[in-house]
Amino acid sequence: MTVTVAIDCMGGDHGPEVTVRAALEFVRKQDDVRAILVGVDEKIRPLLGGVVEPRLTLRHASEVVSMDESPALAIRAKKDSSMRVALDAVRNGEADACVSAGNTGALMAISRFVLKMLPGIDRPAICTVLPTMSGHVHVLDLGANVDCSPEHLLQFAIMGVSLVGAIEHRERPGVGLLNIGEEDIKGNDVVKRAAELLKDSGLNFVGNVEGDGLYRGEADVVVCDGFVGNVALKASEGLAQMLAVSLRQEFDRNLLTRLAALISRPVIGRFKRRFDPRRYNGAGLLGLCGIVVKSHGAADAFAFGHALDYAADAARTGVLESISRRIAQLAPQRPVAEVA
Amino acid sequence: MTVTVAIDCMGGDHGPEVTVRAALEFVRKQDDVRAILVGVDEKIRPLLGGVVEPRLTLRHASEVVSMDESPALAIRAKKDSSMRVALDAVRNGEADACVSAGNTGALMAISRFVLKMLPGIDRPAICTVLPTMSGHVHVLDLGANVDCSPEHLLQFAIMGVSLVGAIEHRERPGVGLLNIGEEDIKGNDVVKRAAELLKDSGLNFVGNVEGDGLYRGEADVVVCDGFVGNVALKASEGLAQMLAVSLRQEFDRNLLTRLAALISRPVIGRFKRRFDPRRYNGAGLLGLCGIVVKSHGAADAFAFGHALDYAADAARTGVLESISRRIAQLAPQRPVAEVA
Repeated sequence: MTVTVAIDCMGGDHGPEVTVRAALEFVRKQDDVRAILVGVDEKIRPLLGGVVEPRLTLRHASEVVSMDESPALAIRAKKDSSMRVALDAVRNGEADACVSAGNTGALMAISRFVLKMLPGIDRPAICTVLPTMSGHVHVLDLGANVDCSPEHLLQFAIMGVSLVGAIEHRERPGVGLLNIGEEDIKGNDVVKRAAELLKDSGLNFVGNVEGDGLYRGEADVVVCDGFVGNVALKASEGLAQMLAVSLRQEFDRNLLTRLAALISRPVIGRFKRRFDPRRYNGAGLLGLCGIVVKSHGAADAFAFGHALDYAADAARTGVLESISRRIAQLAPQRPVAEVA
Repeated sequence: MTVTVAIDCMGGDHGPEVTVRAALEFVRKQDDVRAILVGVDEKIRPLLGGVVEPRLTLRHASEVVSMDESPALAIRAKKDSSMRVALDAVRNGEADACVSAGNTGALMAISRFVLKMLPGIDRPAICTVLPTMSGHVHVLDLGANVDCSPEHLLQFAIMGVSLVGAIEHRERPGVGLLNIGEEDIKGNDVVKRAAELLKDSGLNFVGNVEGDGLYRGEADVVVCDGFVGNVALKASEGLAQMLAVSLRQEFDRNLLTRLAALISRPVIGRFKRRFDPRRYNGAGLLGLCGIVVKSHGAADAFAFGHALDYAADAARTGVLESISRRIAQLAPQRPVAEVA
């Protein structure tokens, strides 16, 4: 089965410089993928350097959604944006997935407008992968929804479990609820009610997970309100950056420490590779009738390539069907489709 | 001015072993402090090893609040607990501050019951210090309140600014609002409304701060709902632990890496000291008519000593008066005392 990924080549801090390079590498590495490069023709073509690759198609889109553009305006006024045209390709069935490093809010809004929601899902959620002591964890939502109901958290759990079930070929991934204590009595009303729904859901609910439990790998999937998830993710990013800068400063203090740095380079290098955020680049916008992956705006070609791989994997393993199937299974127990 | 700290010696994972040792060191190091050691006499006395120190008093309390005890039960049923007796000493004016490493929920509830709230403050908030790129930041709330109104966030800001103003002798510390974007339109309704209140408050409001901004030192004080603050703090702790373990693993991989570890030891040691969480131990329970400091339950004597220092500092610099003064200053503008 060949998988086709539509790439919004104009998005992100670096635009085509990064996205086109990553796309070339993507099709070179994998025989069973195709890419549709969407964006301003005269910006993309020169970067291909005359390469003729039958699995790469260029599709012109005259407009670009800027990083600070309002989502509503992007939908209304930019019908020929690279983001929109890439998503149209998914809707038309020409592509199996779309990847963009552009404006998150606009990508979310246009995706929802173009692709619509899967039956039984009220809101899309942003899901990303974080490293843990023992492997990794999928966390959602990371900012698409700032006021979630218990039912939304249950839907996030179903989507996260379906994703992990499909791409990691696992039958019953463990799902945890991000909370401020492990006991049932902890948390706000939304979280307490969500815990009850999760217990009754038939999913493999492992209970409350605290902030530090995220990194201890206490669950395969952790669900939370987008506000909380976004703060937790960014606080982690900020802390990791601060520690990296400080470690560099300490190793750069004087001749002796620089010698230590030289000798420790292979060790520090392996340590850095293990937690290289570029290897975790690519957040799924789950709940849509189509696979959409958001890359970090600052991604380089290596990082953007990981987002492309993630999208291809999701398409190849039938994540959408997996979500739909689980939603349908749960429907008789709980009318998820009917919640507000 | 001599400052007296009442110490709940029975709290925490290690009890008197840690708290009594830290108390001895505390009075030895500082001439102008006294300590009241509160707890089970026969557990504490042997640890003093016959030391006669006029600035250390032992006060027997027959009961202990356990780490998993319900706060309501702790108030009702344990009137002679070490926690309660230590807080009574603050209320009676015998002590200027209380420090406990015990059950957080019980400490919060008993503090509120014994000491009452400062006029104009609705709820206590837990405030701690985190290291940043450029120094440190005071963050509140960290879990006392899981559903905050905009007015509560404003009160947290006033308390945080008062604390920093007093203990760091600063006139107008910058206060930020933890949010999921820097723009005004980001966040949920509570946060948006809180931003408006903060803009009108006369405080030095520096705007929204994202999760990563916490560690970039974008503000001196950052306020948030207790749910969000708790998750951000614990996620940071979890990440730091994971990175520390992994770095150790990499340095312990083989003979060569162990040699690198030996040579890098001074560098890694300095790095670790800089972010040693024990140096940041001690969270203030702000908003009460009395100074109460919560130590981490797992604190060792070094960490517990930092919580004692923090409490003494807060008492010495008149944090309570500072909060009351600022509340009074703001009162004509906004009837903070009247919010629900």
